[in-house]
Amino acid sequence: MGELIQEFNDYRAKMNDVILGKQNKVINRLFNLDTNCYAEGALSTKTKEMLGLVASMVLRCDDCIKYHLGKAHEQGVTTEEMYEIFAVANIVGGTIVIPHTRRAAEYWEELIAQ
Amino acid sequence: MGELIQEFNDYRAKMNDVILGKQNKVINRLFNLDTNCYAEGALSTKTKEMLGLVASMVLRCDDCIKYHLGKAHEQGVTTEEMYEIFAVANIVGGTIVIPHTRRAAEYWEELIAQ
Amino acid sequence: MGELIQEFNDYRAKMNDVILGKQNKVINRLFNLDTNCYAEGALSTKTKEMLGLVASMVLRCDDCIKYHLGKAHEQGVTTEEMYEIFAVANIVGGTIVIPHTRRAAEYWEELIAQ
Amino acid sequence: MGELIQEFNDYRAKMNDVILGKQNKVINRLFNLDTNCYAEGALSTKTKEMLGLVASMVLRCDDCIKYHLGKAHEQGVTTEEMYEIFAVANIVGGTIVIPHTRRAAEYWEELIAQ
Amino acid sequence: MGELIQEFNDYRAKMNDVILGKQNKVINRLFNLDTNCYAEGALSTKTKEMLGLVASMVLRCDDCIKYHLGKAHEQGVTTEEMYEIFAVANIVGGTIVIPHTRRAAEYWEELIAQ
Amino acid sequence: MGELIQEFNDYRAKMNDVILGKQNKVINRLFNLDTNCYAEGALSTKTKEMLGLVASMVLRCDDCIKYHLGKAHEQGVTTEEMYEIFAVANIVGGTIVIPHTRRAAEYWEELIAQ
Repeated sequence: MGELIQEFNDYRAKMNDVILGKQNKVINRLFNLDTNCYAEGALSTKTKEMLGLVASMVLRCDDCIKYHLGKAHEQGVTTEEMYEIFAVANIVGGTIVIPHTRRAAEYWEELIAQ
Repeated sequence: MGELIQEFNDYRAKMNDVILGKQNKVINRLFNLDTNCYAEGALSTKTKEMLGLVASMVLRCDDCIKYHLGKAHEQGVTTEEMYEIFAVANIVGGTIVIPHTRRAAEYWEELIAQ
Repeated sequence: MGELIQEFNDYRAKMNDVILGKQNKVINRLFNLDTNCYAEGALSTKTKEMLGLVASMVLRCDDCIKYHLGKAHEQGVTTEEMYEIFAVANIVGGTIVIPHTRRAAEYWEELIAQ
Repeated sequence: MGELIQEFNDYRAKMNDVILGKQNKVINRLFNLDTNCYAEGALSTKTKEMLGLVASMVLRCDDCIKYHLGKAHEQGVTTEEMYEIFAVANIVGGTIVIPHTRRAAEYWEELIAQ
Repeated sequence: MGELIQEFNDYRAKMNDVILGKQNKVINRLFNLDTNCYAEGALSTKTKEMLGLVASMVLRCDDCIKYHLGKAHEQGVTTEEMYEIFAVANIVGGTIVIPHTRRAAEYWEELIAQ
Repeated sequence: MGELIQEFNDYRAKMNDVILGKQNKVINRLFNLDTNCYAEGALSTKTKEMLGLVASMVLRCDDCIKYHLGKAHEQGVTTEEMYEIFAVANIVGGTIVIPHTRRAAEYWEELIAQ
């Protein structure tokens, strides 16, 4: 597994444990709801992960982007499809999204090199 | 055509004419690029319009939401699919997206009543 | 009841009915969680409503602001306290928050005139 | 004076009176600082008003945009210059800025028709 | 003092010196106003720091979050109260706030370990 | 060349190569349009770079800020002028911009030390 991927996954798992361990009901239910949100439904999980990714890109959250890049990769999104998602994010969100696209592109290269 | 739809389309068309008429090359090319962005490609126009919609929702731009709702309707998105897009937008973007979802739901009702 | 308050409450109730009626599980649970979030806990409902208000102000969502202004009023927040919340929102969020503060001030005048 | 301009100025003046009348020191000083910020300095007031305008556009605050459009007009900004400011805002901020550009263009037409 | 806390405080102090040393009146007054904003008033400093924290979380500024976490800790906010603030921030701001909540949780663990 | 400048430029160049090499037409044209946007026109490149910088600051994108700081430095912007741009960004965008101003100030010190 690539270095960026390992580091992201490890930190995410470690801190989720800290947060969920505090037993705040609202937070724990929100984490649960977040998982349900991307389940197969009228739209496929693949489509929903693409929606989650583009939303994360225009809101410019690098860690959210990494998470959805990983999920999109698991769902079989191709590089050509991925760059069309990047295109929508950059057109809607503007050039302010470009630095996040650079980090997304770097992470994606690691994902497809696995 | 519903009242909200008519009003949105008329104002949009009128002001786009004013803007494009000023012949600013960068703006006119960006408008053109915006159209190209949603053309059929590795991803379908339907998928891209859903991406544009969710991006508009989390960025909370009512007019952008209306535009993509209209396009999604043309692409045959169903009400059940639409509410799954709304769900992703509200989970990623939070309850701050709810008021925009109310206006989106109102506009969608007009679209499907046509 | 003031005109702005009536109009806000009516539209909110009408559209929430439309949205919740579609039976999207994720959305309906999120609405439910939103209510739980402000329940008495380690922090009082009054404090949580002030938190919800300042968050709505810096994110510049007029309808969210109106909702939390109404709730804060019910919780007995005074005008002097309210303007200290406005102050935090304007300092953290900048002068971009001023137009939203104008509309918040107008709505607050209606609330305290009841 | 155009209708949009009159309405904007009247509401702004009325609500600023309400807000400043509450004598919250932090808010009143921030309003004062906001005025000082655009005074002639190493940069001209004209340049600073253009900076305030582009910042308002990418943050998508219609009332802030109207305010700075009025000030930019007083400072002699031409229509050609104005559309280059619009271009920067739309490139940096993305197509999400377009609906705000439409309303800005409408307000600008009123300003130059005076 | 924990490593994250030391690093944050040192960089903040060093760069504030650089910025304030340039003697830009508007910036220096804004820094001053920022301090006044959280003084005891109709609302306690503790409440205002919680407001500043939730505003920083929904605006997703990690350094602002760290600053207000430190201040909230000084004001005696408990871990249970803190997670209720995190809950409001995540409900209002959405799952896009989760990665910032992870970093906030990590910093909070350092603060309470002191 | 300062360390921060070198690191920023190297990563930017490397990742732009990866992105542009994927030949997504929309993205490649947007990158091109981004360059055209700051060309001499009715407004000078110097003014446009200041506009790009203030927009990047209020949108709080550190890499975009670094890029425009470098360009502004090439255009002969002085430190006094720069801090007036910082002032507008902090007044419009609020204290949430301060941490980004710290990093901007650090990068600017490197630029003027060259």
